[in-house]
Amino acid sequence: MKTKGILIVVSGFSGAGKGTLMKALLKKYGEQYALSVSATTRSPREGEIPGREYFFISTEEFEKKIAKDELIEYAKYVDNYYGTPRDYVEQQLDAGKDVILEIEIQGALKVKKKFPDTLLLFVTPPTAPELKARLIGRGTESLDVVESRLRRACEEAEGMDKYDYLVVNDDLDTCVEQMHAIIQGEHLRCSRNTVFISEIKKQLEELKGE
Amino acid sequence: MKTKGILIVVSGFSGAGKGTLMKALLKKYGEQYALSVSATTRSPREGEIPGREYFFISTEEFEKKIAKDELIEYAKYVDNYYGTPRDYVEQQLDAGKDVILEIEIQGALKVKKKFPDTLLLFVTPPTAPELKARLIGRGTESLDVVESRLRRACEEAEGMDKYDYLVVNDDLDTCVEQMHAIIQGEHLRCSRNTVFISEIKKQLEELKGE
Repeated sequence: MKTKGILIVVSGFSGAGKGTLMKALLKKYGEQYALSVSATTRSPREGEIPGREYFFISTEEFEKKIAKDELIEYAKYVDNYYGTPRDYVEQQLDAGKDVILEIEIQGALKVKKKFPDTLLLFVTPPTAPELKARLIGRGTESLDVVESRLRRACEEAEGMDKYDYLVVNDDLDTCVEQMHAIIQGEHLRCSRNTVFISEIKKQLEELKGE
Repeated sequence: MKTKGILIVVSGFSGAGKGTLMKALLKKYGEQYALSVSATTRSPREGEIPGREYFFISTEEFEKKIAKDELIEYAKYVDNYYGTPRDYVEQQLDAGKDVILEIEIQGALKVKKKFPDTLLLFVTPPTAPELKARLIGRGTESLDVVESRLRRACEEAEGMDKYDYLVVNDDLDTCVEQMHAIIQGEHLRCSRNTVFISEIKKQLEELKGE
């Protein structure tokens, strides 16, 4: 029973460990997943490689993509556009790969509306104090930034129950296995296997008539 | 994140290998699952042990259970009652175990209606000819019986898309892992973790206020 790839949107609080989780998942089960790379109009930062962190394109190119409906979702932050190119995602899905987009909650809900088969996963630390401890523990953020992240987390938490699944990032290995299990399981949903179901019904009818 | 056990109903065509699959699942992950044992008014057959295959009770006792709503579902075949005692199931769920009922499709849909959180799994062979081959291969059934099983499978197939998940029983080990992955994944559904979600929202609000 071979199904088409599933489009997976991963969101979660800043500090929940999404990046680390994605890396570990791809390291272990890389042959099954493809990570979508966003396009942006902002300039590359030091160490960023075009096509790895982002596709860096001009505002003109980006707006052309919007006009041609070549983006699955996009948003503008400050003066820069960020969006998910449709062609790469569709190629990978057709090839049977599950494609992961890491985007924030507003984008996630837009994608789900446009593509109702999308699987929405929310990554969260086990508790809010643990989230705060991780944000402080990074040591790279000022207390102001930590607090603004926590306020943002409060807002984001309001949308948590619109997601399909919750991934509690406590132990990384457990978390990778859980995320993989969720996606494996989803492939077996009856609603994703209507072709198989029609086929076996047809075969049974034929056998009965013999 | 500890969730209550999930009630799981497993159905499938006769010959799909449900029995073998359940045994293999319990052998590998026995600490997580509990198999529900049905009550029946029919007499024990040779080799059947009370409390293992069935609880054997009198018609009077059975009808008392119906009257007291002590059965999750029940049905009458020919002159005998078959049903699922509620107390055992609820004890196991409360203890965090996932409880598996192996019942046919009409019963499965009744359970789902009464307990909407129930997970419905349908076990199927990869193809209908494979099902026929397995039924013939058993060698214990006359051709008449094989054909009546296939006719029954045709009827049952009509209800397949009312199930949540499909488990294609091709290779037994794969099948055990798939079934386990489905159930593991289900525990992480947002709709099954509303307590966790409310709790983390509350914690975030408190931290923000500090």
